[in-house]
This record gives sequence, C-alpha cells and structure tokens, in this order.
Amino acid sequence: MCRWLAYIGTPLLLEELLYKPQHSLIDQSLHAQLGATTTNGDGTGVGWYGEHPSPGLYRSIAPAWGDLNLREIASQVRARAFLAHVRASTGSAVQQTNCHPFRHKHWLWMHNGQISHFALIKRELMLAIDPELYPEIAGSTDSEVFFFLAITFGLSHDPPQAVERAVGFIEQVGYAAGIEHPVRLTVAMSNGHKVWGFRYSSIGRSASLYHTVEVATLKDQYPDNPILHDLSTESRLVVSEPFGGLTGAWSEVPESSYAVVGQGEDEIVRFKPRAP
Amino acid sequence: MCRWLAYIGTPLLLEELLYKPQHSLIDQSLHAQLGATTTNGDGTGVGWYGEHPSPGLYRSIAPAWGDLNLREIASQVRARAFLAHVRASTGSAVQQTNCHPFRHKHWLWMHNGQISHFALIKRELMLAIDPELYPEIAGSTDSEVFFFLAITFGLSHDPPQAVERAVGFIEQVGYAAGIEHPVRLTVAMSNGHKVWGFRYSSIGRSASLYHTVEVATLKDQYPDNPILHDLSTESRLVVSEPFGGLTGAWSEVPESSYAVVGQGEDEIVRFKPRAP
Amino acid sequence: MCRWLAYIGTPLLLEELLYKPQHSLIDQSLHAQLGATTTNGDGTGVGWYGEHPSPGLYRSIAPAWGDLNLREIASQVRARAFLAHVRASTGSAVQQTNCHPFRHKHWLWMHNGQISHFALIKRELMLAIDPELYPEIAGSTDSEVFFFLAITFGLSHDPPQAVERAVGFIEQVGYAAGIEHPVRLTVAMSNGHKVWGFRYSSIGRSASLYHTVEVATLKDQYPDNPILHDLSTESRLVVSEPFGGLTGAWSEVPESSYAVVGQGEDEIVRFKPRAP
Amino acid sequence: MCRWLAYIGTPLLLEELLYKPQHSLIDQSLHAQLGATTTNGDGTGVGWYGEHPSPGLYRSIAPAWGDLNLREIASQVRARAFLAHVRASTGSAVQQTNCHPFRHKHWLWMHNGQISHFALIKRELMLAIDPELYPEIAGSTDSEVFFFLAITFGLSHDPPQAVERAVGFIEQVGYAAGIEHPVRLTVAMSNGHKVWGFRYSSIGRSASLYHTVEVATLKDQYPDNPILHDLSTESRLVVSEPFGGLTGAWSEVPESSYAVVGQGEDEIVRFKPRAP
Repeated sequence: MCRWLAYIGTPLLLEELLYKPQHSLIDQSLHAQLGATTTNGDGTGVGWYGEHPSPGLYRSIAPAWGDLNLREIASQVRARAFLAHVRASTGSAVQQTNCHPFRHKHWLWMHNGQISHFALIKRELMLAIDPELYPEIAGSTDSEVFFFLAITFGLSHDPPQAVERAVGFIEQVGYAAGIEHPVRLTVAMSNGHKVWGFRYSSIGRSASLYHTVEVATLKDQYPDNPILHDLSTESRLVVSEPFGGLTGAWSEVPESSYAVVGQGEDEIVRFKPRAP
Repeated sequence: MCRWLAYIGTPLLLEELLYKPQHSLIDQSLHAQLGATTTNGDGTGVGWYGEHPSPGLYRSIAPAWGDLNLREIASQVRARAFLAHVRASTGSAVQQTNCHPFRHKHWLWMHNGQISHFALIKRELMLAIDPELYPEIAGSTDSEVFFFLAITFGLSHDPPQAVERAVGFIEQVGYAAGIEHPVRLTVAMSNGHKVWGFRYSSIGRSASLYHTVEVATLKDQYPDNPILHDLSTESRLVVSEPFGGLTGAWSEVPESSYAVVGQGEDEIVRFKPRAP
Repeated sequence: MCRWLAYIGTPLLLEELLYKPQHSLIDQSLHAQLGATTTNGDGTGVGWYGEHPSPGLYRSIAPAWGDLNLREIASQVRARAFLAHVRASTGSAVQQTNCHPFRHKHWLWMHNGQISHFALIKRELMLAIDPELYPEIAGSTDSEVFFFLAITFGLSHDPPQAVERAVGFIEQVGYAAGIEHPVRLTVAMSNGHKVWGFRYSSIGRSASLYHTVEVATLKDQYPDNPILHDLSTESRLVVSEPFGGLTGAWSEVPESSYAVVGQGEDEIVRFKPRAP
Repeated sequence: MCRWLAYIGTPLLLEELLYKPQHSLIDQSLHAQLGATTTNGDGTGVGWYGEHPSPGLYRSIAPAWGDLNLREIASQVRARAFLAHVRASTGSAVQQTNCHPFRHKHWLWMHNGQISHFALIKRELMLAIDPELYPEIAGSTDSEVFFFLAITFGLSHDPPQAVERAVGFIEQVGYAAGIEHPVRLTVAMSNGHKVWGFRYSSIGRSASLYHTVEVATLKDQYPDNPILHDLSTESRLVVSEPFGGLTGAWSEVPESSYAVVGQGEDEIVRFKPRAP
C-alpha cells in the first residue's frame, strides 16, 4: 500500500506541502497512520506540471525519508499542480519503472491499493490494453496496468467514466477468475488542469481519502498558518492521509465516490464501476 | 549489446575467471573490443550453481567495473558452473529485473544481441508464452521474453530445439510484421550440468562467440599459467570475447551454430531456426 | 539506530537465521520492537567468514526487507560465523560505505547506537586514529570512526580492552566538549573465531542486547525446532533483539558488560571505559 | 577523471546544453574524446541557480547516459547558471556524496583531475581545513577536500586567490611527502554571478579546458543554429571538452591560467599557486 498527495492551485514550491507540514507525506513514508503499512519505503516519486504540457517526473527507489534529490527538487521546483507518492510494494519489484506517478502524455496517475491476485489475471488485463499503448508499459505493477486500461477506455475523453470502465473491467475479469474482491483503490490523476481523486473497493471498505475544504474557510480559521497564507482560494489538495495539524481542514471523500478539484466548484460524485 | 562468460568444470572461485585474467569480463565492461559497444555499464549479474539445484543469482544496476558486492561475491563463492554478464542496454530500463542472467527453476539464461523493433512485436511474443509462465516475467527486456519463449517451446525436454523453435517463432512474427532481420543473438544457458552457447542472426552476421579448446592442450602450451593450473581437463568456457592473453586457447563458434560443453565430448552443432 | 545479529558455530546457510525465524532480523528491518526506531530501512549488510581469513562482505543501500541480492546470498552462502545488520541512520548519508559491518583485515564490526553530537567532535576523534589507518576510512559514520579508534587502541592484541579504551577516549573528548552523554552502543565484533557483544552507554541505559543460552538446553526445550536441530552445542548468537519465538532461549547481556562466545565457555564480563 | 560543463547567461532549460548538442556532456559520459578515460560512468550531477541564492543540486550514482531523472530535470529546470559533471572515479567510492558538484552556501565546485597519492596526504590536508567546516565534508574524494581547502583559504573574499592558495598548499604538502607532481586539475566554480574555470597541473601538462568565444561572433558564423538563437551576447560556457560541432566557437584556456566569465568582459588570467 502507499500514501500520496495531489495538489492544484497557486504555484508553490513542492517543499511547502511535501516537507514543511506536520506529518507531511515524507513523514508518512516512515510513520503512516491510516494506511495498511506504517512504512512506505519502497521508492517515491513526484510529477509536476511545469515548463511543458507534459509534466516532469522524478522517481527513485530510495525511501522518501532519505532521498536527498527529492529534497532538493522540492526546494527548487515551483508548480501549479503536482502529484507525489511514497510506495509500499505489494509484491512487484522495487525499481524506478514501478514508482508512481505514471505518466502518459499530459496525464499523471498514482494509486494506493491493489488488484487482488494480480498474477492470476495480469495476462488477461494486459491483453485488453490498446496494442498501440502496450509497448509503453515499462514496469510490472498492477497500478500501471490499471492506468493503461483507463487510457484504453477513454481517459482523454471522459476521465471519470474511463476509470469506472477500467474498474468495471478488472472486476469482471477478477470475478470470472474466482477472485472475491478484485479491486481496492484510491487513485489520483491529473491532466494539469484538474485533479481527480477516486475512492473505491470491491469489498466496499476503501482506504482513506481526503480533500481540503475551501481555503477561504481555512484562512479564517488559521490566520497565522504560513502554508495557507500563500494559497489562492481555489487551491486544493487531495490526499491519502491528512497532515498539517489543521483540524477542520480536511473532508473525507465518501466511500465509492470521487472528488474533482481544480477549476471552479469542487465536485464529489458517486463512483460506479461500468461495463467496459 | 553485452558481454558474457559461461563456465563449467572444476569448482572455482568466481574471481579466477571474472577478475584475474587479462581483459577479463569485468575489464570488458569498460573496454570491450569485439562488441557493438565499448562500454557495457548498464548493470551486471552472475548466476552460480551452488548449494541447491536452483542457482544463486546476484544482479545489480551498478556498472560491473565498480560493483564492490560483485567483487566480494567473486572472491568468496566457489562454483562448478556459473554464468556472468555485463549489460549494455538496447533501450529497456536499467533495473535489476532487466539484468542477466535470468533464472527459471534450475535454468539460467543470458543473451547478447536483440530482437529488432521489439516494441512492435512484443505483445504478440508475450501472447505466445505459456500463460502459466506469464506472471514470472519480471522485467521488460527482449532477452527475458526470448527465454520464456524457449521455456514455452520445451527447454526442459530438448534444450537446443526449444531455442531453435523460439528463434523460428520470433523470426516468423518479425517477418510478418515487416522486420527485415528480426533476431541477433548469442545466448548462453545452463541447467547446471551442461552449458549451451548459441550464435545466430537472421542477417547471417552474428556477434562473436568463442569456446575454449581442450584444457590439456592449453596446459601443454602454457605450463605456468595459474588459471589453467587448477582446471580439470573437462573444464570449459564459452564467452563473447576471448580474454586471458592465451593465444590458441579459444576457438570461434561458427556462424549459425551452437556449442555444448560440460559433460564428455564437446559438440558444435549447426543451429537452424524451426517452425514452432 | 539499528538492529543486528552475530552468529558463530556450526556452518549454516545464512537464511536459517536471517530469514526463516519468526521476527527475524529481516523482519526487524520493518518491525523492530525494542529499538529506537520501528523501521531500519537505511541499508543493510552481512559479513561472513568463508573461503579466506578475511571475511566476505555484502553491503547495500536497499532496505533489507526488499533486497533480493541479500536474499540470494543468504540462501547460498554457508558460514561458520557471520554478522548481519539493518541500519537506521542517525544522520550520516545512506551509502554503501556507511553500511555495517565494517571490515579491517580479518575483523568485522557493527554498531547500534551513536556518538552524541558527533559532528562536534568528529575531527578530534579522527585525529586520534593511527595515521596509517586513516586512509582506510571510507565512510562518514560515527560507527566506523569508533571501529578505527578501537583498532588504533589495540584491537588485535586485546579486543575488549581496545574497545574499552576507545569508549574511554570518546567519553573523554565528549565530556571535554560539553556533551552530557557521549556514547551509546551495542557493538558486535568478530575475528572469525570468537564473537564479542558489547553493551554500554554513558547514561547507563543502554539499548537491548541478548545472547543465546546453551543450545543443549534449548534442544531439550524445543525438540522439534528445525533451526536448533542443525546446531552444534557450541553454536551461539548475540543479537539486538530476540527472535524465533523461543521463550527461554535468550539471556539479556547486562548493562555495562560484554559477552564473549565462540570457543569454549561463554563469558559475560563487566565493561568499563578506560583511559586510552 | 571526468568531464564537466559550466554555463552562465540567458536562463535556459538545462537540456539545451546537456542533451541537445552534438557530442553533448551526456554523450561524453560514454564517448569522451579528450579525457583520460573514454567512459565517465561513475555518477553524475548538476547544480543550478534557481529559486534561492543557494543552488539546487541533483547528484546520482547512475551513469549519466541512462539517468532518467537527470533527463527529466534537464527538460524542466530553467536556470541562468548551472554546472554539470560526469564522473570517472580515480579510486574513491561511487556514492552520492562523491558526485560533483559540491556545494557550500551559494558556491558550487567541480573538478576534473586528481591529487596524486591522495591517501598519503589526505590526513594532513584534512587537518588544514577550518575545523568549523570539517563536519560538512560528507564524501571521500580529493575533489571535496580541495574545495574545502579553497573555502578555508578565503574563497568568499578572493575566489581565484583562494584556489591558488589551496593548490599552493596541496603542492607544498605533496612535495614534502615526496610526491613528484601533486596536483592535476581543471576546476569550475560559481557563486551564481560568475563562473571561474581553472586549468593547472604541477607537471605543466593539464587536462583540456575551453571557453566559448563571444556569442555575437558565433551568431554571425552560425545564423541557423538553434542553441545560439536564444543566447544573449553575454552567455558563456566553460567546458572540459568542446561540443556542438561549432568550429570556431571554442577557445582553449591556456596552460596554467583561469577564465572568469559571467559579468561584463571575459578575463583570462595566469594561475600561480601561492603559499597559503
């Protein structure tokens, strides 16, 4: 399992959110409180929207807590949107190509959770991926296969529906193979303009997922907080696990739903797997 | 492209062959003379037959020339058969799961060369792999796919024929996809009792491959050579590139053929791709 | 802080002690119970006495729990004495030269604990190291400096006294620099014939240290335990933290004392820092 | 030995100079033409002046040619001054703390060459470093010791004189120890406003060093070159080895001299080691 954070809003140095807050994501790499594992030390990664429509990507097999390059990048890179991840492998190799976020064109994707008995159905899932995309798959995780299924099912046209179809397909294949609860996920994805945060599991007891309430409300509540000071009212976070010691800042994304943040009104929408 | 060495015979400390000779495999990681690239710095690996029928495996993304752990293992591990490899990636990621040798049960496999336009036909090749073996594929190289095709085509029953069928299949798929010269290879494989060294390329101009002549002859020729001193008359090497400064020690494996060494008489046999 | 294990006795595959027991050292890399930190993920290492008087050494910056090479070595290397370590850095870099055990000639050394305010007194400690040894110091840890001080103070002639003098010296320098409690340690060291396990701290509240009771007693108590089955009556372990679920197998090394095991009678001796 | 590049001028994406030119620094990591070694695969690093007076730093033990993170950073980071390095170790460990550039406050430093018989005089050189700086030394290279000697000898007040005194001191210590030719160097350093490039060796046959001629001249000569197109007339490069295929673009820094570029007129000044 893993921990992750997705941000969109006022351009910020990554360190403002990755390192400076209490119980930050980097702290969660050693001391996660709500995850399946306390330690998330099987690599880390961050993707950020910067100079180009296609985001920059830093991925490393070093545990996040000791990764000096991540520390440096976080103190020098300013971005209007970024996704960061600390990994706890559920079995696949610790290697750069298995670190999140995954990237395809201007999309970033990261995942906490797993496809149950992945080895059993990997081949069938891989076969359903658009053959043109197939050679792009560089790693061996369930998370990357899941991403490429979502792309195959139309991520660029209707992002949430593509994820719903990918999950529907994984469940269909999984159930057919006799897997009781095929999917467990929180997923963050972005195209640089919006961030989507999904929460779902076949068993109906998903891992934790939170998003920030309106920054204006928070600023009223914490007038002296330095992080909030620089944020515009439209800035938003979606995270596996709250941090920063800001009681009242975080709102849970309900079971089987997804949050869309980043432009205009936030939305919380019910998530329903679909037939592909 | 890559350089490799396979040994079978009198149990030896790995360093006797990997480090001590002139222009040893480790030296070839920086200064290959016959390979497609001078530098073979994209990782290294060694597999050895030791305590169990299934061989031990050390694989690392560090360049061989500076890999201290490889140096230590080589000075402490004594084996009656081992395969060692220094890698120059032809495009796939530098990660441990892409380092040679690859292992399946008691088999080891390593490859120099490539499947041309691999991205174009990877999906079709993967589909032909026995679905039961599919989840074992951990990396992203053409070399590992090639190995699993050979296993699928009967490696355990008739090793050379399985390789011929794998190559026949890759060529068939490649030609159908419009690839002019689909395969280029030298391959070493072992089950711990014999070593096979294959040399073949669709274009008919294969990378170099050598095997040692009879040790008895060499001992006559070089009575003072410390490496030869400890070798039984049945010890054999198959290598990408000669080393050790022993003129007359090496015999080229001819184009489109394979060597079998390790028990009884050496054999050189013509290699002919077969319909799978 | 860190966790470690030292073994001497019947030649064993390393995995018998490193991987197979309940709450083994590898498990302690993720789930230490008695250490200062739960996670010991800043690298790992093992040194073993094998082919030569000077031991073999494998050291890696990968967390032990996911280190495939360590897993392989442990399943193939059989040794009559070995020291293994999982690291939690107290500040110095995560790099191979900072991984334990450290080696000098036929000696191995590993350390749990720290020299307080090491940066403040490092220069003075380094100056006290024998200038001939100085260039051998390859890393940046307090642990390695401590080892080379012990060598300087006569490790090869009188091992425990050399450690007592090293600690005496560190305390003297530390107190002079205004450091309240300069040293905190458990240390394991070996020359391949004996293992010494030290437990001491300036403050008098040292980290945990255990050694095994007589194997004969254990065999009586656990007649079916597969690990015990292969051990001679003279085999011994000294460890940071018990494992294996063998109640009654472990005896605590008392505060400010050291254990000597490996040949003949076990000894527990009072440890007293000495003026260098 | 190593290859390096230092740039100051119009803010540029790092990739414009690190990756895009013919025979770029990244290409030189595999195919250096003027260096002591063809392969410079023992790690890489880049320091850039960005968000803060203190520069950002990325350093990695991966060979530059295959370092995906370096590729990403180079395509996303735009800087008005940066130093980049590909390393060929002359003996010290391949570890992040030994990768160049080294940083102290707002200074960056990188080195090609070596202090001869460094092990012999390391202790004496370390002793001469300001004790307050001593704990900052994180690696084990001669290059970092050289840097901290220069800081000790007044880098922040009179940069070239501090380097001359550092070299004078190293030569004095070296000669006293019976070393015939103690120093061999090209060094690049920057404070973010200027770049200094030094070329010197005790034997009087220094490694290659080049700087760019005036950009205005080059633009006249190569009106269609895309790299030149975006450069202001004050942009400058100092490099180990020319690249980009621009005959006439490069001017050799003479033996025993240094170049200062970055603000106003370029200077080439004679370099003379001084008594410390």
